[in-house]
Amino acid sequence: VIDKFVEISLLYDFYGKMLTEKQQDIIDLYYMKDLSLGEISDLLKISRQAVHDNLRRAEKQLRQMEKKLGLVERFLKEKDKWSIVLGRIDRIIETLQPKENTSGAVKELEDIKDFISAILGG
Amino acid sequence: VIDKFVEISLLYDFYGKMLTEKQQDIIDLYYMKDLSLGEISDLLKISRQAVHDNLRRAEKQLRQMEKKLGLVERFLKEKDKWSIVLGRIDRIIETLQPKENTSGAVKELEDIKDFISAILGG
Repeated sequence: VIDKFVEISLLYDFYGKMLTEKQQDIIDLYYMKDLSLGEISDLLKISRQAVHDNLRRAEKQLRQMEKKLGLVERFLKEKDKWSIVLGRIDRIIETLQPKENTSGAVKELEDIKDFISAILGG
Repeated sequence: VIDKFVEISLLYDFYGKMLTEKQQDIIDLYYMKDLSLGEISDLLKISRQAVHDNLRRAEKQLRQMEKKLGLVERFLKEKDKWSIVLGRIDRIIETLQPKENTSGAVKELEDIKDFISAILGG
């Protein structure tokens, strides 16, 4: 179970462009910029209730997209695979480090680790 | 520039579930099962023109989804990264192989290569 903010942020990253511009604005202000419903209501000059309804509708649509396409899940599985490779490379480095004449290979493996860490972080 | 069959297959793999069932059937029969418009017309008992129109409309929708969401492109970039790591591991194996006491590490690296090859092939 992941946090709702993380969940909606991920879904929005993948499917946000399928929402109306107003829905995109509201999701962005609420989930990314961390504004309250009242603040968004003031900013966009629409009622607090309208902000609330738009938000719920947008969240529902994002979840429906994921239920249909499952592309966030596919992406998370891909990340798991990167983590697996990262862990395995770590263990290889450990076995190589005490040996002679392997510093070049170890350095290369450390570089690959940085490359994968950047993918996992981004 | 990728082949249209490859392009539509990829788009369909990602966004197919957004199409109507009839469109999904027609894309599947034409692009996956390699049936002709005439054969699909016979099979689904709709006119050849209707098959053609449905196909064009489905292709257009798939391309519009990609234009909006760009998730196939994101996925292809991910594959490029796997290829890069695969190539780098290959070079590390080459440098390690002539050295002593590295057969365990080389075997592990070969395993990772198989793991990545499976990802790239799938």
